[in-house]
Amino acid sequence: MAIESFESHPSRYTHWKLSVDGDIATLVMDVQEGDGSERPYILKLNSYDLFVDIELADAVERLRWEHPEVRAVVVTSGKDRVFCAGANIPMLASSDHAFKVNFCRFTNETRLAIEDASATAGQGYVCAANGVASGGGYELALACDEILLVDDRSSAVSLPEVPLLGVLPGTGGLTRVVDKRKVRRDLADHFSSLAEGIRGSRAVKYKLIDATYKLSRFDAKVAEHARAMADRMVGRADAQPVPMTPVEVEVGEGGDRHYPGLTLALSPEARTAEITITLPDDAGPTDAAGAQAQGMAWWPLATFRALNDALMHLRFNHRPIGTVVLRVVGDPKVALAADALLAQDTWFTTEARHAIRRILKKVDVTAKTFIALVDQGSAFAGSFLELALAADRVFMLDDADGDGVHLAVSPLNGGAYPMGNGLTRLQTRFLDDAAAVEAVMARAGELLETQDADELGLVTFAPDDIDWDDEVRLAIEERASLSPDALTGMEANLRFAGPETLETKIFGRLSAWQNWIFQRPNAVGPAGALKSFGGPTQPVFGWERT
Amino acid sequence: MAIESFESHPSRYTHWKLSVDGDIATLVMDVQEGDGSERPYILKLNSYDLFVDIELADAVERLRWEHPEVRAVVVTSGKDRVFCAGANIPMLASSDHAFKVNFCRFTNETRLAIEDASATAGQGYVCAANGVASGGGYELALACDEILLVDDRSSAVSLPEVPLLGVLPGTGGLTRVVDKRKVRRDLADHFSSLAEGIRGSRAVKYKLIDATYKLSRFDAKVAEHARAMADRMVGRADAQPVPMTPVEVEVGEGGDRHYPGLTLALSPEARTAEITITLPDDAGPTDAAGAQAQGMAWWPLATFRALNDALMHLRFNHRPIGTVVLRVVGDPKVALAADALLAQDTWFTTEARHAIRRILKKVDVTAKTFIALVDQGSAFAGSFLELALAADRVFMLDDADGDGVHLAVSPLNGGAYPMGNGLTRLQTRFLDDAAAVEAVMARAGELLETQDADELGLVTFAPDDIDWDDEVRLAIEERASLSPDALTGMEANLRFAGPETLETKIFGRLSAWQNWIFQRPNAVGPAGALKSFGGPTQPVFGWERT
Repeated sequence: MAIESFESHPSRYTHWKLSVDGDIATLVMDVQEGDGSERPYILKLNSYDLFVDIELADAVERLRWEHPEVRAVVVTSGKDRVFCAGANIPMLASSDHAFKVNFCRFTNETRLAIEDASATAGQGYVCAANGVASGGGYELALACDEILLVDDRSSAVSLPEVPLLGVLPGTGGLTRVVDKRKVRRDLADHFSSLAEGIRGSRAVKYKLIDATYKLSRFDAKVAEHARAMADRMVGRADAQPVPMTPVEVEVGEGGDRHYPGLTLALSPEARTAEITITLPDDAGPTDAAGAQAQGMAWWPLATFRALNDALMHLRFNHRPIGTVVLRVVGDPKVALAADALLAQDTWFTTEARHAIRRILKKVDVTAKTFIALVDQGSAFAGSFLELALAADRVFMLDDADGDGVHLAVSPLNGGAYPMGNGLTRLQTRFLDDAAAVEAVMARAGELLETQDADELGLVTFAPDDIDWDDEVRLAIEERASLSPDALTGMEANLRFAGPETLETKIFGRLSAWQNWIFQRPNAVGPAGALKSFGGPTQPVFGWERT
Repeated sequence: MAIESFESHPSRYTHWKLSVDGDIATLVMDVQEGDGSERPYILKLNSYDLFVDIELADAVERLRWEHPEVRAVVVTSGKDRVFCAGANIPMLASSDHAFKVNFCRFTNETRLAIEDASATAGQGYVCAANGVASGGGYELALACDEILLVDDRSSAVSLPEVPLLGVLPGTGGLTRVVDKRKVRRDLADHFSSLAEGIRGSRAVKYKLIDATYKLSRFDAKVAEHARAMADRMVGRADAQPVPMTPVEVEVGEGGDRHYPGLTLALSPEARTAEITITLPDDAGPTDAAGAQAQGMAWWPLATFRALNDALMHLRFNHRPIGTVVLRVVGDPKVALAADALLAQDTWFTTEARHAIRRILKKVDVTAKTFIALVDQGSAFAGSFLELALAADRVFMLDDADGDGVHLAVSPLNGGAYPMGNGLTRLQTRFLDDAAAVEAVMARAGELLETQDADELGLVTFAPDDIDWDDEVRLAIEERASLSPDALTGMEANLRFAGPETLETKIFGRLSAWQNWIFQRPNAVGPAGALKSFGGPTQPVFGWERT
């Protein structure tokens, strides 16, 4: 099933209602069981599928751009006695492996976006669980800064995946319970194997929730907490709403996507794609106010938003494509000029930088090989250099004439775009070698020729004109011939050297175990737990422990 | 296939030769293609299986005990032009999933034991790769402190798993390349997908090896490096060899194992086992010299070595058993008295402490649920308390009379036994809550009654006499009814909160991805890469990237 769009707008939300009152926003989840589409499952009990999460992702992002005055976001349910039942099980049970994995990746990114809004946009999230929060429902709560649960003698938080479904709470649940909320491991173990979950004061004592209130007081208490959160969070005085307009795109033959400034060209037979970013001839606005006046149309932001959209289409709709060639075409000085604005400490440029940072992280966790090609007319500079640093390999033409082939570093490469591991891509590249990072950063602003870039360690291979075509072609062909699974595992391990964080643990450790379980007959076999859930028969397990 | 013994002795080595000359030892790998057993594969080119690795593990451990004067260990090959070809592929291809996973866990523990000998016993390892080091062969080299490769225009180091076998270099390879040797990620990517590997000065430049020498100079240079290593490493002046005698055991009906001080009782129908440690009535030696005189027979050491043996049998030979009940019976003061000796700074007690630390880590990465039961006559104290802290849950009887049920903390719980994540089990339990750790440590030496232990956070549940039997029985039965795969994934995530290290990355991230790949048709299906390797046909891949 092709996913046509990864965008939404509050006016089109089917499953959420977004309202804003002063500095407090409310996001009400009210999932419609059927939405008129022909999907073979019913979204009971505020359970979600990808389309529900696309709306949530839109709301979280949109609140930053269009409602920067908001300091607290209350996430609650429009249903009685249920907050959210998590990912829809019949949907999962009927999905193929690759979709399940990509679905989890998307929902994980949405939950991380919630935490990012709190950490970098001064928008705190209060989960008002006015009913049962189970599985992915509790995992959504875990992404919020505070969890309030109604005390009505039936509403509980739970992670029933292990006992009921034979899979993991894989949208960060296990990781956030012990690593974010610091629930003691033995209590977390008990909780995570308890289908009915835990409620009331015991849930508070376990640190699973922050507070629980009787139904009669719940709304008032939620309002109190939201008020306190809004008072606690700090926004920027210079923030002014910017409309989050849709990403512009024309879809060509065979699914190629043409955005202003970016083209995604597919070669399904070769199992490759090419993403070409074309910088404008002119850097555009010369001050932050001018950039903000353009809003989403400001070209650096528009280009990275196009990249985000292209990545989602590649992940969901072009799964056999395993290798993506990256090109940036134009004048590196235009990219550096944009970076000079992006580096400014205004609300708009800061938000743009954060948006670019989030999109670059999506490159890091996309299960495709990225190969950056730097040749004549290339402009991997500053923020766009991050794409080369995120790539698995960088080829840079060693031009005989010695001109026309350049990379460039900007101050933003020194800290604006940390990866999930908390380090910049340069720090990760030169792990424990601060001198190598400094040597690169000392050249910020220069156009670096191939030999310099190579010596600085920015380039994997630097073939000359004679070898370039063959070397590049062979590298891409060879890559596209290897086991896609082995490459996914290899990249997931090599891309994240250095420290681990909540985020890398979720994508590295938790997701890897979940993916393993998603392949196991005990979960997905004909008599597996995921398949038999809700049916008349109990799952049949093979008992070997591995 | 049941594995009869996980022990060996140099006099019985089939595949290795261990020699010691002053402070330098040499371990020569010379794998016999067939060793008389009926295994359906031939160990060509110094490739290894579990039995080869059992001998290596013996040698690494034995060097610490029997040759504490050794400061440098040279690992090399007895074959021409090949150092080690890695894990035997036909062995892997013909093994079932659970064996493959346990095999990798065992070999990972052996390689970590090499690094541990370097870090804590002053025994540095020099890999003298006198021929091709491919796959697991290079991973063995990576576990050493130094890698020297012969420069004969053919010998290379390589990780051909991805390009040739469609699996990962899962014995730490990917992790150690980027996280230990700090190979740049793009170079690591290139190297890890290059079947033929990299040799000579390029391998040095990539940081894959430390040096390469022409064949004519190789032996002399290896000797130089070994000499320098031995001079650099620091041992203890008070070290005196202690014979590493075999673990004593009587095997009973149905596979139960009776060691002095420890019994492993199996209940295959319930899919449970019980490990009962029985402390001696008398603490034994009252000084470190007395303990050293007893050597391996000193009861704390003998008990933990028995535990190690029991764990290996549980992992390999009793795979459907998923739940292990832990009991320690005796007088907690006897355990505390032993800890008073273990805490002393003598060579023997330090080595004993390190051995116990390594064995406790094996509990942490064993894919079985551990439930500690503390009731009348229990003696989870000090080093033995670590077993309760390593357990997924602790039940402690809330005795009506208020006496006879105790836990006890010793100073060793404060730092002697860090987990793979670098934190003690108490620190991991109370993540970011140093006050809770201090509160526990302040009670060192006391016999803690149930209420105290519960308040200190050491206990998951404290049922009274009336509920005890039912609660414990139900917990075990429920646990044994859940999906074994989901439990494995859950435990792997909940046990390791906090920071990640090379070690936790290997067991958490790398192994999880490898396990996933070991389930994928692209690797293990009839036309998968692992199955078709060495045969007449190319693997056939499904191309979806996940």
